[in-house]
Amino acid sequence: MLVSDLGEFGLIDRVAGALPPPGEGVVVGIGDDVAVLRTDGENYLLATCDIQVEGVHFLREAIGPYRLGRKAAAINLSDIAAMGGVPTYLLVSLAMPPQTEVSFIDELYRGLQDEVSAAGAEIVGGNMANLPDRFMIDILLLGWVEPDHLLLRSGARVGDQVCVTGVLGNSAAGLALLLDPQAEVDPEVWEQLLAAHLTPRPCLLEGRALAGMGAVTAAIDVSDGTLSDIGHICERSHVGVDIWAEQLPISEAARSAAQATGKDALDFALRGGEDYQLLFTVPQPRVGEVMEGVWAATGTPVTVIGQILPPAAGIQVVLSDGTRLPGSKGGWDHFRQS
Amino acid sequence: MLVSDLGEFGLIDRVAGALPPPGEGVVVGIGDDVAVLRTDGENYLLATCDIQVEGVHFLREAIGPYRLGRKAAAINLSDIAAMGGVPTYLLVSLAMPPQTEVSFIDELYRGLQDEVSAAGAEIVGGNMANLPDRFMIDILLLGWVEPDHLLLRSGARVGDQVCVTGVLGNSAAGLALLLDPQAEVDPEVWEQLLAAHLTPRPCLLEGRALAGMGAVTAAIDVSDGTLSDIGHICERSHVGVDIWAEQLPISEAARSAAQATGKDALDFALRGGEDYQLLFTVPQPRVGEVMEGVWAATGTPVTVIGQILPPAAGIQVVLSDGTRLPGSKGGWDHFRQS
Repeated sequence: MLVSDLGEFGLIDRVAGALPPPGEGVVVGIGDDVAVLRTDGENYLLATCDIQVEGVHFLREAIGPYRLGRKAAAINLSDIAAMGGVPTYLLVSLAMPPQTEVSFIDELYRGLQDEVSAAGAEIVGGNMANLPDRFMIDILLLGWVEPDHLLLRSGARVGDQVCVTGVLGNSAAGLALLLDPQAEVDPEVWEQLLAAHLTPRPCLLEGRALAGMGAVTAAIDVSDGTLSDIGHICERSHVGVDIWAEQLPISEAARSAAQATGKDALDFALRGGEDYQLLFTVPQPRVGEVMEGVWAATGTPVTVIGQILPPAAGIQVVLSDGTRLPGSKGGWDHFRQS
Repeated sequence: MLVSDLGEFGLIDRVAGALPPPGEGVVVGIGDDVAVLRTDGENYLLATCDIQVEGVHFLREAIGPYRLGRKAAAINLSDIAAMGGVPTYLLVSLAMPPQTEVSFIDELYRGLQDEVSAAGAEIVGGNMANLPDRFMIDILLLGWVEPDHLLLRSGARVGDQVCVTGVLGNSAAGLALLLDPQAEVDPEVWEQLLAAHLTPRPCLLEGRALAGMGAVTAAIDVSDGTLSDIGHICERSHVGVDIWAEQLPISEAARSAAQATGKDALDFALRGGEDYQLLFTVPQPRVGEVMEGVWAATGTPVTVIGQILPPAAGIQVVLSDGTRLPGSKGGWDHFRQS
């Protein structure tokens, strides 16, 4: 059996299943984006890592070293945001051909540093190795969260409303434009969508605001795609979900990019991924309070896009005409690219 | 300018120089193998990472997945040992071709888990990605140390004795045998040296014993090579050193492997690297106490192999006939392989 047969999540489940059960210090272990760990202090320690590989996760010429640095940091910061945490320290593992230009590394670190310092965190170490074929960056980010502020994937309950910050699909729309240079859109649209794809913003303030309100039952960041990520919440919370297509916050820019590239804006929003918005569930009576609270604290809108259902409902997308589509497949899997 | 022109350590210095000075929470930052960090607890948090690339750091067929897992974990555990710390949690980043056999991953994790659990630590997360060309593993290891137990590279003083645990050169001797299948040595020697190269033992108990005695002024683990690693201590401590060739603890096994492969056992010990012994400095009056203390606590011998001198002395190897060789070059550099 090959890794490609199992897929990323199948492989993670297999690996986790073969390990002994986690010890007392582990609040959240393998299977989540972030490990949540007890130390000798009062707060929990958060630890997350993420690999970005040239030609797989990014196109080196398209993104450039500065934005690659920013994005590699942002992706990890977003994982800490989704736990309601505060990022602190970052270690950078680089593997690259010895023929790499030093100026590429200079710019990469400038991007890392800009993103990390904007988040109030620091680069404190790392490791460099020879990888003859291509450039690779693996980032380890540490952070902390108060035990009563920790946001998990596992607490969604039937009747909870599914909410999301900001807009969905802009990153995928930006990628579609990158891959189709013939597509004609307004320069402003082009710039906005490319920025969404190449320099995504981690929702750290939104995550802290949500964590402080005590109303969120489950949360994740939209990295693999909305359907895939709500699927992670459903799996961990043992629930199903309806996602209401008409309610998805899709920007005019994403719609015009979809038209220009012959793609579907709904698909950008549902399966595109890399929006790094926060996707979370809230008991129905507290939705108004949460929307107002996040808006007041951050200026970011929150939209209700669905509802948690019993597990037998599975994951479904409800279109405006009432048609229901199964939504359980279609996110990003590192070993099963379509 | 290319990365290969600067070399690994030149590149790290350049990167560190371009970043803002470390904040108050950072006890040790970029430039050391381990970051030492303040949290809200009393102990310091330790964080280290290390990449192993197929065909660069290891030969996949020679080591096999189980031993690769053990070694990848051991290398990081050794870094924590050199700080006098206690390892706790490990995150595993894997990048590999989708055609990788799942059984390879199973065995890799079995090796990781065996090594990690023997050290009292736990695997708590990680990340898997598609790397089309070859296998790569990046391990992030966390740990802790009491502030008054922390061992650093920076405290060696003129007159201190340079000490090392165990024997030096066995790992390089094992590699020499691996690369020269024609070489004839006793099967027992072969097995001992291959084990030293393929399943090195991190000196965690020795590190804790040393940390508890309060006599060690500087410490590092022998990963790049004895000369290169004592060079890191000299650089951080602003001192020079004489290494006494005749005093180096070289095993009979390493000597016979040197003979069988036409290599120099002294070279194995001085430049080979990957022994993962602890190399440390102790004020002369306390050497006897330290040797006895480590032996009593762990059964590991400690050997005095040199003496710290003023910085102008540089790094020199003194042969038995009094000849002095400059020893400042010759360790492992990821981007300048000889």
